[in-house]
Amino acid sequence: MFTELPAEYRPLTLDTISDYVYSRPELREVFHDGEPLDAVEVGDGNLNYVFKVWAKADPERTIVFKQALPYLRLVGEDWPLPTDRARIEAQALEIEYRLCPEHTPRLYFFDPKMYVIAMRNLNHHIIMRKGLIQGIKYPHFARHIGVFLARTLGQTSDLALDYRTKKIEVARFINPELCKITEDLIFTEPYRPTERNRFHEQLRPQVEALQADEALRVEVAKMKEKFMTHAQALVHGDLHTGSIMINQEETVVIDPEFAYYGPMGFDIGAVIGNLLLNYASHEVRTPDPAARADFRKYLTDTIIELWGVFLGEFQRVVWDQVDPVNMPKGYQDDYMLRLLHDSAGLGACKMMRRVIGLAGVEDIRGIPDPDDRAIAGSLALNIAQVLIMNRETFRTIEDLVDAATACRPTYPWKG
Amino acid sequence: MFTELPAEYRPLTLDTISDYVYSRPELREVFHDGEPLDAVEVGDGNLNYVFKVWAKADPERTIVFKQALPYLRLVGEDWPLPTDRARIEAQALEIEYRLCPEHTPRLYFFDPKMYVIAMRNLNHHIIMRKGLIQGIKYPHFARHIGVFLARTLGQTSDLALDYRTKKIEVARFINPELCKITEDLIFTEPYRPTERNRFHEQLRPQVEALQADEALRVEVAKMKEKFMTHAQALVHGDLHTGSIMINQEETVVIDPEFAYYGPMGFDIGAVIGNLLLNYASHEVRTPDPAARADFRKYLTDTIIELWGVFLGEFQRVVWDQVDPVNMPKGYQDDYMLRLLHDSAGLGACKMMRRVIGLAGVEDIRGIPDPDDRAIAGSLALNIAQVLIMNRETFRTIEDLVDAATACRPTYPWKG
Repeated sequence: MFTELPAEYRPLTLDTISDYVYSRPELREVFHDGEPLDAVEVGDGNLNYVFKVWAKADPERTIVFKQALPYLRLVGEDWPLPTDRARIEAQALEIEYRLCPEHTPRLYFFDPKMYVIAMRNLNHHIIMRKGLIQGIKYPHFARHIGVFLARTLGQTSDLALDYRTKKIEVARFINPELCKITEDLIFTEPYRPTERNRFHEQLRPQVEALQADEALRVEVAKMKEKFMTHAQALVHGDLHTGSIMINQEETVVIDPEFAYYGPMGFDIGAVIGNLLLNYASHEVRTPDPAARADFRKYLTDTIIELWGVFLGEFQRVVWDQVDPVNMPKGYQDDYMLRLLHDSAGLGACKMMRRVIGLAGVEDIRGIPDPDDRAIAGSLALNIAQVLIMNRETFRTIEDLVDAATACRPTYPWKG
Repeated sequence: MFTELPAEYRPLTLDTISDYVYSRPELREVFHDGEPLDAVEVGDGNLNYVFKVWAKADPERTIVFKQALPYLRLVGEDWPLPTDRARIEAQALEIEYRLCPEHTPRLYFFDPKMYVIAMRNLNHHIIMRKGLIQGIKYPHFARHIGVFLARTLGQTSDLALDYRTKKIEVARFINPELCKITEDLIFTEPYRPTERNRFHEQLRPQVEALQADEALRVEVAKMKEKFMTHAQALVHGDLHTGSIMINQEETVVIDPEFAYYGPMGFDIGAVIGNLLLNYASHEVRTPDPAARADFRKYLTDTIIELWGVFLGEFQRVVWDQVDPVNMPKGYQDDYMLRLLHDSAGLGACKMMRRVIGLAGVEDIRGIPDPDDRAIAGSLALNIAQVLIMNRETFRTIEDLVDAATACRPTYPWKG
């Protein structure tokens, strides 16, 4: 939680990072002691410094260093954040790497005095969100992320862990301050007038109607309760397309500093919700109807495929291993259906906050024209509202996709 | 968890207890140093030594000492149990006493080296189960237990605690070994053939039919999942009528060593389920139809009243304090309805295990005639099955009571 900073804690700088690298024996397999290094600070997040370091003699010998800051960078020192989250991130990375090394960056070390994590530099990858905004398709993504979700969620749950390990892990991953950010920014503030909401002025009528909708607030409250009480699995906790490094061959999930024991649907819903935010953005980002339909079909096919892969891998790594007397087939089917409902509801909350709340996504907030931006935001809100309100009617992933693709923007008001 | 015993740990005996009493300054307000004491060992539980100690000069100056043994007494040293549960019990008692001193024994101290808890001796009370078996009515019980449940559950949940305290409390009350007992004995073993089940031979056809019922095992699996993942409130964890000390004026809940963060319905359901086990026992314990109907009406009126008191007190201490924008009335109503469903389902599991599983209840297993005993057990199983299978159809507590009272025993098979 909030602990005193160790006396050795120093924020890394471009001037100090080389000496720091030389001081770490874990990096001798990558860098020779004292060899010339280049470095750049690349943190586009709000919580950390991120440095990429490489050997001048061979840029392929490279490591990323992520150092937790004791406050939220976006806001400044007014919003203190515990550096303990770096421990959480390192321990979550270790577990994810053990369960799914194909899609997790290798961890070189965690330095508990400097709150520094050293890991593989994904220097041939881009942030998935940027690729999707450009309309790039990633044909293996659905399979990769479906496997990642099934293994990291299924195999950290009570369904796979022994009773004692699960409970000790719940305690180890208690992450109050970062969970609080989610509780406030995703489940509370978007549904009431607050200073920190940042929606487009054109969307005000739609946002105000949504905030006035008590039935919606009831469903959001249930989702918040689920986030706060359902200790189902070790979730990544922030699995949007900005936490995925990707190229045509490889998919790597980074940044699990929000990890804690929560509902599996929060991660699955984050992936689906962010694909649908991108879907909404192409309403205006891709004016050509054929090109738009083509890319959207890629996005919805991806949602359908990733859920199918998730079901198959979950069957293999979880259900095929359990005792069918106490967990009969009917229970297993019901469990997966409830995961679908949770994913729809929790994913919907993640979509709405990206349009209404403090932290947006570039897919939508990066659209230059304010009317275009509002059209995309309006569509995203309508998709989210249908997903959360109708979630318990979905029997299959196709039902979810059909509900989403039937939505249209409400804005512009005069058609 | 499993820690080494401190070097100072010694099992208390009748020979050593006086010196132990004199050594504790917290008891100077009760006993004079060195004054003659009388003591008796009264543990009828399976996990602990329990000593009652009083001043020879004045038996009203009296204290109970409860010492955790490092194994389960019922089974012997083959089933080791962590003495850490004494810490859990002491810390749970402190919280319950703060929230509801009227119905919690005062704690004098917890000795972390001897795993001894010293608390008020409830020497004018009897174990409620014994009273109910004798057909004694407790007119204030419904009000007392309704208040106890509302305060101890509502005020340890996310609805009342700040985000950080709740999460720290979840970690503090991680209680793997005692939760494992519940997971095995309540949610797993009764639903499959195992050596440790101990049902009456006459009930074999009914038990085998129940174990063969996949739809029932699906619902039990959902209840087990809820027990293992739903960190809703600090629950007592073992709130049957053997954990309640009572007389005509006072009700005191003891023995929260199974406490952990779990579903509120586990405690509420334990109370309701144990009242219904007693209800089933009077099928044969009270042969006179008018007397039987009268006592059963007391039991079902108690269930209806305790739920009503619970709703009212929960409204006062929880819902009246929350923000109605993010937790609108519709959410509050839905929350309480889900608690009713959870209580029905979890209480049903606690009923079934008392007939089928290792640990029975005197209400039923204490019936001398084996046919009579099987009739009561059969009725208890039928009530439990209706509660768990139909729980989501209940809109009110009267629906639950009506479903229970409509049940009849299946045994004797030939009517």
